[in-house]
Amino acid sequence: MAFEYLTNYPIEEARQIYLEALSKSGIELNSETIPTINALGRITRHAIYARISAPHYNACAMDGISLPAELTYGSSESTPHKLSTKDFTWVNTGDPLPDRHDCVIMVEDVIQQEDAVLIYSPATPWQNIRQIGEDISAGDMILTSYTCITPAMQGALLAAGVLETEVFNIVRVGFVPSGNELVTPTGNPKPGAIIEFNSTIFKGMLEQWGCKVKNYPIVPDEQHAIELSLLDAAQENDLTILNAGSSAGRKDFATEAFKTVGTVVIHGIAIKPGKPAILGFQTRNEMTIPMIGLPGYPVSGILIMEEIVKPVLDLITHQAMLEKHILHPALSRKLMSSLKYKEYVRAQLGEVSGKLIAVPLNRGAGVVSSFIKADGIIEVPQNVEGYETGEPVDFWLLKDPREIGQALVVTGSHDPMIDEIADLMQLSWPKSRVSSSHVGSMGGIMAVKRGEAHLGGIHLLDDASGTYNIPYLKKYFPQGRVILMRGVLRTQGIMVKAGNPKSVQGVQDLPRVSYVNRQKGSGTRILLDYLLSKENIQLDVISGYQREEMTHTSVAAAIAAGTADAGLGIYSAAKIYGLGFVPLWQERYDFLVLEDAMQLESMQQFREILTGNPLKIRLQDLGGYTIENPGEIIQWN
Amino acid sequence: MAFEYLTNYPIEEARQIYLEALSKSGIELNSETIPTINALGRITRHAIYARISAPHYNACAMDGISLPAELTYGSSESTPHKLSTKDFTWVNTGDPLPDRHDCVIMVEDVIQQEDAVLIYSPATPWQNIRQIGEDISAGDMILTSYTCITPAMQGALLAAGVLETEVFNIVRVGFVPSGNELVTPTGNPKPGAIIEFNSTIFKGMLEQWGCKVKNYPIVPDEQHAIELSLLDAAQENDLTILNAGSSAGRKDFATEAFKTVGTVVIHGIAIKPGKPAILGFQTRNEMTIPMIGLPGYPVSGILIMEEIVKPVLDLITHQAMLEKHILHPALSRKLMSSLKYKEYVRAQLGEVSGKLIAVPLNRGAGVVSSFIKADGIIEVPQNVEGYETGEPVDFWLLKDPREIGQALVVTGSHDPMIDEIADLMQLSWPKSRVSSSHVGSMGGIMAVKRGEAHLGGIHLLDDASGTYNIPYLKKYFPQGRVILMRGVLRTQGIMVKAGNPKSVQGVQDLPRVSYVNRQKGSGTRILLDYLLSKENIQLDVISGYQREEMTHTSVAAAIAAGTADAGLGIYSAAKIYGLGFVPLWQERYDFLVLEDAMQLESMQQFREILTGNPLKIRLQDLGGYTIENPGEIIQWN
Repeated sequence: MAFEYLTNYPIEEARQIYLEALSKSGIELNSETIPTINALGRITRHAIYARISAPHYNACAMDGISLPAELTYGSSESTPHKLSTKDFTWVNTGDPLPDRHDCVIMVEDVIQQEDAVLIYSPATPWQNIRQIGEDISAGDMILTSYTCITPAMQGALLAAGVLETEVFNIVRVGFVPSGNELVTPTGNPKPGAIIEFNSTIFKGMLEQWGCKVKNYPIVPDEQHAIELSLLDAAQENDLTILNAGSSAGRKDFATEAFKTVGTVVIHGIAIKPGKPAILGFQTRNEMTIPMIGLPGYPVSGILIMEEIVKPVLDLITHQAMLEKHILHPALSRKLMSSLKYKEYVRAQLGEVSGKLIAVPLNRGAGVVSSFIKADGIIEVPQNVEGYETGEPVDFWLLKDPREIGQALVVTGSHDPMIDEIADLMQLSWPKSRVSSSHVGSMGGIMAVKRGEAHLGGIHLLDDASGTYNIPYLKKYFPQGRVILMRGVLRTQGIMVKAGNPKSVQGVQDLPRVSYVNRQKGSGTRILLDYLLSKENIQLDVISGYQREEMTHTSVAAAIAAGTADAGLGIYSAAKIYGLGFVPLWQERYDFLVLEDAMQLESMQQFREILTGNPLKIRLQDLGGYTIENPGEIIQWN
Repeated sequence: MAFEYLTNYPIEEARQIYLEALSKSGIELNSETIPTINALGRITRHAIYARISAPHYNACAMDGISLPAELTYGSSESTPHKLSTKDFTWVNTGDPLPDRHDCVIMVEDVIQQEDAVLIYSPATPWQNIRQIGEDISAGDMILTSYTCITPAMQGALLAAGVLETEVFNIVRVGFVPSGNELVTPTGNPKPGAIIEFNSTIFKGMLEQWGCKVKNYPIVPDEQHAIELSLLDAAQENDLTILNAGSSAGRKDFATEAFKTVGTVVIHGIAIKPGKPAILGFQTRNEMTIPMIGLPGYPVSGILIMEEIVKPVLDLITHQAMLEKHILHPALSRKLMSSLKYKEYVRAQLGEVSGKLIAVPLNRGAGVVSSFIKADGIIEVPQNVEGYETGEPVDFWLLKDPREIGQALVVTGSHDPMIDEIADLMQLSWPKSRVSSSHVGSMGGIMAVKRGEAHLGGIHLLDDASGTYNIPYLKKYFPQGRVILMRGVLRTQGIMVKAGNPKSVQGVQDLPRVSYVNRQKGSGTRILLDYLLSKENIQLDVISGYQREEMTHTSVAAAIAAGTADAGLGIYSAAKIYGLGFVPLWQERYDFLVLEDAMQLESMQQFREILTGNPLKIRLQDLGGYTIENPGEIIQWN
């Protein structure tokens, strides 16, 4: 087995063992003294005390006159005191209190005469004065050690005469990408070339955590080259990260390299993805430099960054490790997991009819786009086999909690129109959020039925009647409670290579080419089955019928790449890829909407966009759409 | 009245009017196209679509062999298929899938022979393959317009061949500080000079909000100079801020300057602090440049930054304005407020015996240190006169919600030792937080009694018995439920100017000098009263008896500044200021602890530090402390 030499520590235990090993080896960060005005976000090395008081003098807090309060004693509305100019001083806010004066009377409360003022009520000593040290007294501790400096703290330090501040150095991180197949980002990569974008992701995360990151050149899969690069990185950084090669496959030299240049504490954690992480350290001039091997897949790497690298940074900078923000939404669909690992499943969070729902996303470790869509991560503990639909799960929120529950949850058939609507909503209402997942038309029906989506796109052809959508609603929603909203007419057809080299004219030609299909329950697959049965063609004679893609564009991508000859899909997808297209059918693509959701502001915005001109223009650009009364409510029951 | 010309719009209304005025005048930000690797935190101008698919080829997802799946059909444990080298290819993870192959079998699942492999079970087509477009298909919308780019998004863009991204320009803000009395930060300011630290605070806030800030030189209080600087700032920025001069006092030229160079939308908001804000705009080449006059006091300015400037930035960058995070803690003490204004009162938040408590801090608009201590802000609506003790209030949380309830709440008599303990706790336990407020010994007793503090320092001398603390506990806690924990012995005495120029030898000399007192309920004031009564000296013969300071160091600061001759206080405060000190008395400074709080981890940490050597060393440095069995539980009932 590839992983047989890896240990299998639970993540919490692995983290604790590693942090203790680092502490014991004497990890320490140097400090520097910098101007306070540049200290935003830096961390204090020691406690900081005020050098001067703030205010640093007794300051008048109002525009008016200052004087000894005792001169006003006994004055009243009926017996005002008349004070001559030698008794008082005109002062502005911020002026120092003149000697022997001990109060300020507001300009509004005195009557001015030529060389005098009249006072109608007694003042109390020290009224309207900001006394010296009112805010900060010299000698007061302003900040404790290990405090992350905010703008207000900078202000207080400057007010207290602390012009320079001793802070920990910014943590320098050296990032070494490794792999023969890696290439720097390009718009035209060769097959087999893997675009190296991990360093950009991890640099961004580290910078958001306050580090300074140096990305080293890509090193090949050679143990010695990796060793040299790690040694290099340790010379000028406080932490080093090697990306990929951390597994135990044939080309994985990381562990051996780690052992040569330093110490391996842990290799292998019982999590999925993320298992093959390596946790170790190097030493430079008796200083400990943590050295971490991140798995190559971006999702695995991001998880190890969050679960291990961030706590190491907290250790180095003496910051408290913040607890994860955990919610307990209900699971939208059954989720299986291995007993061997704690599993992390990226998921979207939606609030539908007052219930918080977690919708798992694609679990592939290479699927970086899932981290864009994800609101957080479902954590399935190591000793749990999975969860049933509706069970509450531990959901690690990765967004601001104030964003929860604002998204319009769209679950159903894929159409590029949904993304265009989301974009148009964003353009008009900055608060709008659309959380969409592509699970096919039947998936959409089930999601709305279970109350896990506000709406879903469907295009379901009924064999018997040859009509769209309504027969399915009658079957699945006998009690009503859903609305059918008119969407568009779409042209479905066979996508083929440009120029149609295999001369595909209709479904009757599919048995002699290689096909790429859509997933079960998708309207497009149901349409294919319908068209094949009309022609009396058996499914098993179609080569590639079992090959499933989740979207029109991924079918088009497969044909464009030459790994299939044909696939059923909509015209707009063929157009994006410059494919040939054999039109076969016009279908109804409508929206199934939960009745409860019709009142939502975001639903009304969705409908407003659906009926508007800007969407019409975008659909014309995409091609293959016919629009008649979009947004209309269709009577179906 | 100084403010009589100012309008009095409720804050929500003022904000709405201003944002609408800006929208109507056609506010717009330019965009630029930059390398995606530099786009972290930037905001997309348009929707972004994938240029290539990810993966961009069909990739092997395992180390093993690739082959056409049909060659394996029918194989089983008893009837393995033997495949020769022309039938399959050895592949590594990430390799492109060879032509005509449609699956990968893991290396662990094949038995290798010399020129062949044995297969024991049938493969399914497309197993262990990352199909082209599995993550992203070319043409898919990756990001909608107006999206703030995260590290994962950068990764997805690069994976999709999007090497450059069109983003809004970074918002440039020009900050103009104004005021004759302002000086750049210095450790040795002259009386009347006001240290200009606002620009540092506001620059920090703006940078945290993603802006690029240019601080202009301090301009004097002259209308024309202000106008020139504002015109200058509008030439090279997207938003201009003038700090101070926004009131309507004699030296406030801001409004007139605003009217000359642009348009004033609103001058005067019904909030306290923050009332004299000016909201307006300039125009440059038909572009609208918002122009905001911030009040001079830092606290006022910070509030206008949060309530007005941040929403303006959200408008410019098309971001959703996040709701405030509002909690509803119980108020620790009565809070009065004006019906004329919505009032913002900075406050600390503590969780004591499971109850969330808001403790208001000093309300002075100049008290920037309160923003260090504050966990958030109590909002008292315009039509509310105030709240009684224990009433729930609207509390605008300014910290991460995960930090709530972790602080040890220390409320009572002031001693520098408490800050030293907090610092030593921080050094040992990064998570520890001490939230301390100085309200005097009696204030501490009341806070613990009301269940609003975990503990408080007290040094209360009982007239009748001449003993410390225990008589008060017997009086105020007849039912027990509190613990008395031994603290230290402190030397109290009369602080006088260095060299004791007025030859103060004891309290009998106080009637002939100017005195500065502590607040009512403080142990030090009670001690003074006791000592005076022993000498038969009347309180009203002490000049300055009414002048109150809240801490030992602020009394010392007053004497050091020469505004008083003498004040009672502890030796360590006199030492910090290099004052003379006439020792009078050794007093017991102990800790009153809520019984429930003894089990808290943070309480145990407090006690551990109290009994440890590092604190002993620090107290020796401070001077005037005698330590005997600190942390010991004293029997009192």
